[in-house]
Amino acid sequence: PFKEVIDVSSGDPTGLSPSVIPCLSFQVLAVCLYPELLKEESLPLDVRRRAQRLLGTCGGGSVGSYSASSCGIPHVQKSIAEFITRRDDGVSSHPEDIILSSGSQRALSLVLHLMASGDEETQTGVLTPVPCPHTLPTLMDVLGVKLVPYQLTEEGGWAVDLEELHRALNAARGHCEPRAIYISNPGNPTGQVQDRKTIEKVIQFAATEGLVLLAEEVYQDSVYGQDKEFISYKKVLFEMGQMYAEKVELISFHSISSACTGECGLRGGYMEVINLDPAVNKYLRNMQATSSPPVLPQLTLEAMVNRPTPGDLSHKTYAQEILHTQTTLSQNAQRACDFLNGLPGIKCQPAMAGVFLYPRLHLPPQMIEEILGVEADVLYCQRLLEEEGVCLGAGCENGQDDQNYHIRLCVLAPPATLEEVLARLRSFHLHLLHRFP
Amino acid sequence: PFKEVIDVSSGDPTGLSPSVIPCLSFQVLAVCLYPELLKEESLPLDVRRRAQRLLGTCGGGSVGSYSASSCGIPHVQKSIAEFITRRDDGVSSHPEDIILSSGSQRALSLVLHLMASGDEETQTGVLTPVPCPHTLPTLMDVLGVKLVPYQLTEEGGWAVDLEELHRALNAARGHCEPRAIYISNPGNPTGQVQDRKTIEKVIQFAATEGLVLLAEEVYQDSVYGQDKEFISYKKVLFEMGQMYAEKVELISFHSISSACTGECGLRGGYMEVINLDPAVNKYLRNMQATSSPPVLPQLTLEAMVNRPTPGDLSHKTYAQEILHTQTTLSQNAQRACDFLNGLPGIKCQPAMAGVFLYPRLHLPPQMIEEILGVEADVLYCQRLLEEEGVCLGAGCENGQDDQNYHIRLCVLAPPATLEEVLARLRSFHLHLLHRFP
Repeated sequence: PFKEVIDVSSGDPTGLSPSVIPCLSFQVLAVCLYPELLKEESLPLDVRRRAQRLLGTCGGGSVGSYSASSCGIPHVQKSIAEFITRRDDGVSSHPEDIILSSGSQRALSLVLHLMASGDEETQTGVLTPVPCPHTLPTLMDVLGVKLVPYQLTEEGGWAVDLEELHRALNAARGHCEPRAIYISNPGNPTGQVQDRKTIEKVIQFAATEGLVLLAEEVYQDSVYGQDKEFISYKKVLFEMGQMYAEKVELISFHSISSACTGECGLRGGYMEVINLDPAVNKYLRNMQATSSPPVLPQLTLEAMVNRPTPGDLSHKTYAQEILHTQTTLSQNAQRACDFLNGLPGIKCQPAMAGVFLYPRLHLPPQMIEEILGVEADVLYCQRLLEEEGVCLGAGCENGQDDQNYHIRLCVLAPPATLEEVLARLRSFHLHLLHRFP
Repeated sequence: PFKEVIDVSSGDPTGLSPSVIPCLSFQVLAVCLYPELLKEESLPLDVRRRAQRLLGTCGGGSVGSYSASSCGIPHVQKSIAEFITRRDDGVSSHPEDIILSSGSQRALSLVLHLMASGDEETQTGVLTPVPCPHTLPTLMDVLGVKLVPYQLTEEGGWAVDLEELHRALNAARGHCEPRAIYISNPGNPTGQVQDRKTIEKVIQFAATEGLVLLAEEVYQDSVYGQDKEFISYKKVLFEMGQMYAEKVELISFHSISSACTGECGLRGGYMEVINLDPAVNKYLRNMQATSSPPVLPQLTLEAMVNRPTPGDLSHKTYAQEILHTQTTLSQNAQRACDFLNGLPGIKCQPAMAGVFLYPRLHLPPQMIEEILGVEADVLYCQRLLEEEGVCLGAGCENGQDDQNYHIRLCVLAPPATLEEVLARLRSFHLHLLHRFP
């Protein structure tokens, strides 16, 4: 009954709208791959100069060579460290703490793999928010790490609750060996942005309990909530004084697959590794040594952290593209949230960042019993797909295994596509409710 | 005492010589990244058409999107399956058996990770040739798999010896649980090319002993030994009759980082998975699901397996580039082997394929005792680097832990660079020997 399937279950902006792609880094890569373009005057001079500079940092002057180091191209590590230092108002970052990889997920895999050990009560546990990014439960399962859930507070806009952290940790002890806490800030899929006070408390908690902090911060450049700003865990940690700054083990993750630099298909990311035991740090680098990170995504990362500045010919285009993405994202999120909250049986917390909305379904118990069953979120999504051709994510993928059913949708799509998604969703939803008056 | 360090320890042709890069796939990628180039008439029409076709297979028509499937872009899987079918003279390959990944090493990691289990006598063991590819011992160690060594026969040009396979397996049983046999054909770093009879025997051995066959075949397009040809394990397996073809579990690996398509920095590869238990197969795909393979290397793979044909405008250039690489490789290997065999205390088996030579050092026992110590190969390489600025690989990295000392050098370099390497090596070697007359 529909012309085409629209998939808004994952956060892939380019798949939904090619125009969202910032052209800068793709142009740079094109020149690096085909250096004849260095002479192509239709390309902005700063793009060509950047490509030339980057080619000079590659082995043999070619993107076809392996990275000089298994942690990445030194020039890119340096650019990223400088970016972090600027971002964190001078809290310094060091190139040797930056490890490049083919995506932040891949970087996280390395770390989880390294931490995984034991069995039953000795198995490594990682405190993990519920809801969490939808690829995380599978990743932990594959790597043999136990997911220790801590519930975010939905009514408080999906905030972290310190008491809940203590409860989760105490409940887990004896059943596994909790060794780390995973944070997603800005939150995937919640769109929540943590304030400084919360971050300080989480850091204190990690310090007191001897947990490694794994901070996924890939939506740091996509905060649009009023009066909200992204503050990195690294910055807060270093501003809490020596006792914390020199002690707490922190690994933070960033990626080119975020909202405003949505080059998902290229698969590039990095982690910054702080205060890790030197032997562990060395082993982590050795794990990477068997397979050095791909070169092109590293060059894309360089373009992401070193944006054109006013005066560069490409600055205007690039700034427009970013602004366009940010505006679309913010307006879409607001529009979809209002729309969903206007439907009976759906309650959506407003998002402040990132690309997802994560509304809750309040379905009649009779409907759950008679039609949808215990996996009501999965069946809801499945029927929506079959009947209306819209693919959403089911909350259980985000680690939600209680009976608070949620759905996940990416709002980084052209507004017309979003309207189509919302219209089809309403039609399906009302039709479903209609059968249980 | 030297102007620059020359690193010939790894098989990265582009790092040594940018001119070795076949331009075709890089041009295609450049157009995919910067579609304005579709109108660029200085690029061959078939290159632009190919780029347009490939863009059409990407989500949203952009290389910025994630792969449609976590196993890869369906069009690329199909192209690879067709390539394999042609290569194997009609033995059919199926797109759904092809899993793309960021490099053959990464694909192998997934498989080894999947197979890893147990501890002490229950730990998964993998029969592994000595010498083996130099990244393999670390990879197995990191993934918790026990390396069960079987010695290749150096005097027979590094051939596989069936009796040795039985010996190795019997010796391992009781100490670990051997579950697979790893094959490198054409051999890395030996340059040996297995004949059909050997392959049949290895398959029979794997079948009888219930071992999974892991066939690394990344140098399949770089065979230059006279009367030698690459025959795939897949082809032989399917020609041995139903009893084998439907039973033996085979996973074969290929990569864009091989000799003639040396796009190492892009990190792309695939595996073909045959006869795996459906549940295991499903789990393998799930492991990949958390992080889909990068798009650009997949497009490079497509260009590798679908070369321009006569009639395509780019055919001539591309064929010339390939021929140039193959000729350089073959001549270099011959030249370096003769040169090394002309030095006292070095004995080198001729290579038939791939990019490495792997000569043996016959050093005076007194030199080993007094200067080099038990890690004579490591110290030999270290001193060569310090004194002459040439970086070779030490045989111990290839799993050689006996006292037959070897060194490893990549011969895919411009002939002038190779001459420089050989001259410096001779100077160092003779100087060293001179001190122990």
